Amino acid sequence: MSVARARLLIACPDGRGIIAAVAGFIAEHQGNVLDADQHTDPEHGEFFMRAEIELNGFDLTCETFDAAWTPLADSLDMRWRMNWGTRKKRMAILVSRESHCLHDLLWRWKTGELDVDVPFVASNHADWRGDVEALGIPFHYLPVTPESKPQQEAELSRLLEADAVDFVVLARYMQILSPSFVERYPERIINIHHSFLPAFAGRRPYHQAFARGVKIIGATSHFATDVLDDGPIIAQATLEVGHWDTVDDMIRKGRDLERVVLARAVRLHAQDKILVSGHKTVVFE
Amino acid sequence: MSVARARLLIACPDGRGIIAAVAGFIAEHQGNVLDADQHTDPEHGEFFMRAEIELNGFDLTCETFDAAWTPLADSLDMRWRMNWGTRKKRMAILVSRESHCLHDLLWRWKTGELDVDVPFVASNHADWRGDVEALGIPFHYLPVTPESKPQQEAELSRLLEADAVDFVVLARYMQILSPSFVERYPERIINIHHSFLPAFAGRRPYHQAFARGVKIIGATSHFATDVLDDGPIIAQATLEVGHWDTVDDMIRKGRDLERVVLARAVRLHAQDKILVSGHKTVVFE
Amino acid sequence: MSVARARLLIACPDGRGIIAAVAGFIAEHQGNVLDADQHTDPEHGEFFMRAEIELNGFDLTCETFDAAWTPLADSLDMRWRMNWGTRKKRMAILVSRESHCLHDLLWRWKTGELDVDVPFVASNHADWRGDVEALGIPFHYLPVTPESKPQQEAELSRLLEADAVDFVVLARYMQILSPSFVERYPERIINIHHSFLPAFAGRRPYHQAFARGVKIIGATSHFATDVLDDGPIIAQATLEVGHWDTVDDMIRKGRDLERVVLARAVRLHAQDKILVSGHKTVVFE
Amino acid sequence: MSVARARLLIACPDGRGIIAAVAGFIAEHQGNVLDADQHTDPEHGEFFMRAEIELNGFDLTCETFDAAWTPLADSLDMRWRMNWGTRKKRMAILVSRESHCLHDLLWRWKTGELDVDVPFVASNHADWRGDVEALGIPFHYLPVTPESKPQQEAELSRLLEADAVDFVVLARYMQILSPSFVERYPERIINIHHSFLPAFAGRRPYHQAFARGVKIIGATSHFATDVLDDGPIIAQATLEVGHWDTVDDMIRKGRDLERVVLARAVRLHAQDKILVSGHKTVVFE
Repeated sequence: MSVARARLLIACPDGRGIIAAVAGFIAEHQGNVLDADQHTDPEHGEFFMRAEIELNGFDLTCETFDAAWTPLADSLDMRWRMNWGTRKKRMAILVSRESHCLHDLLWRWKTGELDVDVPFVASNHADWRGDVEALGIPFHYLPVTPESKPQQEAELSRLLEADAVDFVVLARYMQILSPSFVERYPERIINIHHSFLPAFAGRRPYHQAFARGVKIIGATSHFATDVLDDGPIIAQATLEVGHWDTVDDMIRKGRDLERVVLARAVRLHAQDKILVSGHKTVVFE
Repeated sequence: MSVARARLLIACPDGRGIIAAVAGFIAEHQGNVLDADQHTDPEHGEFFMRAEIELNGFDLTCETFDAAWTPLADSLDMRWRMNWGTRKKRMAILVSRESHCLHDLLWRWKTGELDVDVPFVASNHADWRGDVEALGIPFHYLPVTPESKPQQEAELSRLLEADAVDFVVLARYMQILSPSFVERYPERIINIHHSFLPAFAGRRPYHQAFARGVKIIGATSHFATDVLDDGPIIAQATLEVGHWDTVDDMIRKGRDLERVVLARAVRLHAQDKILVSGHKTVVFE
Repeated sequence: MSVARARLLIACPDGRGIIAAVAGFIAEHQGNVLDADQHTDPEHGEFFMRAEIELNGFDLTCETFDAAWTPLADSLDMRWRMNWGTRKKRMAILVSRESHCLHDLLWRWKTGELDVDVPFVASNHADWRGDVEALGIPFHYLPVTPESKPQQEAELSRLLEADAVDFVVLARYMQILSPSFVERYPERIINIHHSFLPAFAGRRPYHQAFARGVKIIGATSHFATDVLDDGPIIAQATLEVGHWDTVDDMIRKGRDLERVVLARAVRLHAQDKILVSGHKTVVFE
Repeated sequence: MSVARARLLIACPDGRGIIAAVAGFIAEHQGNVLDADQHTDPEHGEFFMRAEIELNGFDLTCETFDAAWTPLADSLDMRWRMNWGTRKKRMAILVSRESHCLHDLLWRWKTGELDVDVPFVASNHADWRGDVEALGIPFHYLPVTPESKPQQEAELSRLLEADAVDFVVLARYMQILSPSFVERYPERIINIHHSFLPAFAGRRPYHQAFARGVKIIGATSHFATDVLDDGPIIAQATLEVGHWDTVDDMIRKGRDLERVVLARAVRLHAQDKILVSGHKTVVFE
């Protein structure tokens, strides 16, 4: 039986005694640190920490925590967030024609492997409506043309707001979201790119990999930023290929990488295990 | 430029507030926790922690630490050790005829990759005397027969004591050390076994792997215990093989695994990053 | 557009000129070898070959091939089979409560990744009837008790015959099939075992792996034989775990291995790329 | 005991009956194909083949082979080469300050793992003279400045000719060879680049990788061409890194990749297992 626990995430300038200060604060309030990870980025002198706090006995609540915590947080110049674990994160999925990532995420969601709710799936194609609705998940068909993109993105934004979505997964969504859309959701859009970035950014990476004659292919999950395929990388994986592999073989083999690498990023994000540090991620596993 | 730092390792029954207590103690004495890892073994209710402490400003020393720390340590029923970082660990190497692990360790030592001193290399064959002595390291030729084993191990023990050796690496040493010898050096003998244990324990593991027709081979570094190939595992790695690989191919490919897996264990041990928990290891990387 | 091609598989005592004899025979009959693989097992002096033959222009047919080919085959003491590629292999799936392999195989079948037909899925639990039937595949609920096992296996045999099943996949089917049943389907039952065999054969391999403290876990697909978890290995894969992984983490991570390793074996078998050589497999990829 | 064998390598336009023609020719002359690999590049309609021929009984020799073989070779428009296995390939090594690849190659050479002779090692630094000469291998110190590069390369060419060198290995040679030099040795210069190309070509790839925040690093061995880091890739490997890895950690971990990936390329090339197809390699393992 698991105990109720909150997750505290901290980023601040590096300095002496931060762990002692944070652990001391929590102990003072009858909390217990069940799990703590920290990282110091020596390049930028920044300190990162994630702590899981046992709530049984903790004398602070969602209502009273801020007032008690803020003096310490401010004195150390922290950016921080506290997840009280009272609700699952709400994840919307965007997909186009290739469905392997969609089906994989839905299967993991259904079997309880991902600790999220899925308020809806949206697509610029109607193909997957049946599979999605059969699981009791609303499906939104949002076709798009170059002309209609502003309206389509506006409609998507409306849906994200209406359903209180926490983050969006681009599960092989083959439309490029506009920079203005992406900027509205910092660290809240997770994309899967079908290459080991930064190699083969852009379109048709398996075709690029085939043309270059690489002996390994890969997949990369990352936060989307306004620069295409350039956001902070969350997870990557690779596998070996050979001269006998056609582009279609690479596409087939790569699907297994993409599924695993995207699911890993989603799982990490759902558990508040990713902190963004400039152009990179700190991943506390 | 790196700062002087000590390493504190702790194992104790799990409980509330341990991190806060430890970090608080260190802060109280003007130390700074640079890096902390901890792990709770829920099966046995045991808590493990490793902390690197910045010594600049710390008001305790090698002489005064124990008296200050013991009350807290005892109240939490800790097993603990403190490495003040004032000397490198002293590593003796035992080897037989296969030299790839020996040469690899010596190369890493020479290039400064392993933070150890090497007081001597010993072998039941004289083959590598030249290579070892050329590096300025003493070489002891300790031939052994079933009859002379007790004397040979006694001589080895004498050398280990005389040179204040901290730990011994069995770099493909093909003699089985007696249980009574091994018991005298708990968590201080690191062995490399050329299979992914527990598969293919015992003799000629590549021949066993070939006979079984496995599609992966592996290597395992572990602490030696009085049961052969059964000690706590420190690191493992595997690679793919196929029907085209002969036993000799496996042996050749395996050498690359063995070198890396053994070097990894040595490096972790030299940095006090391994804690033994019953029949397992906790490895803080 | 792919050309019609047949697959010829050969095993025979090693000797001079076998490739020339086979390739010559095919050329003489206006066939073309599109792809050829061969392997010599030096231990047993056995030669293995797989050739894909372009049928366009080939002057032999299903009806006339045997008479023309037999003299050569007999003179070289061959075991052989010829797959004319006129029908897909028929694969039945057995499953119990854990469905990740079943769902994965069905998804790959549905998207055309596996070149098989699926005449039915059978299970000792009724749980997956809905998911299977929704895809238009018959589902047979075959409950079993120690007492009813002979009847259950008889019913299963009847279904396999009635549906002209070519091979059976045990997709985490947690019942041990009787040796007499298994013997009836040599090289026609593919199992997935959730460890890197021969380590952790038998029940609850992840629990065994956790207890031993390994740093890698694995999965193994193999042909079932009358000795449990001992048949010829087709494919294996491994991934790293650590002290922080609970048994449940291992089970979760292992699911991704199992899915990929089982699908790989099925794909290879569907394409006649596996030849059994004693206790091992020759896999022509 | 291994039998005398020659290696025949063929590239020609794809067509019907090539395998039969080649295997037939060899059988006709009482040779025996011990091992054959072939590959068809469907993109360019090119066929590649490598055959190992048992020479015991073969009625052609180095002197008579060409006349007998040429009519067939010409009729199929082949590029081909025959290695009679009468001498080992001669490999020169170039190195700069980082010696891990040099030491690794020399260790593999000394233990017989690489089937090559090493006529000399050359370097733009004198550091490794002692280690090289201790193995009985001549060492040439070839310092270089931007001004002296033409003369230095002329001297290197002279040495390569004088020692009948077959191929050159750039074992972390940090000077860029001039295009005119490289062009003189097509498919005869093997380089190791310390990234998973095409990512991070050029200088300081680990620094680039660190800056980008990738979660995997890699190494690539390839034939050098006149475009830097762009030649046909022979072998690649990758390993996982994390936010805790500094640039120095990446450099250290990467050394183990580089050693293995370079040794693999050298071994393949020494055994005539690499065929170049345009901008790619066909690797027959």
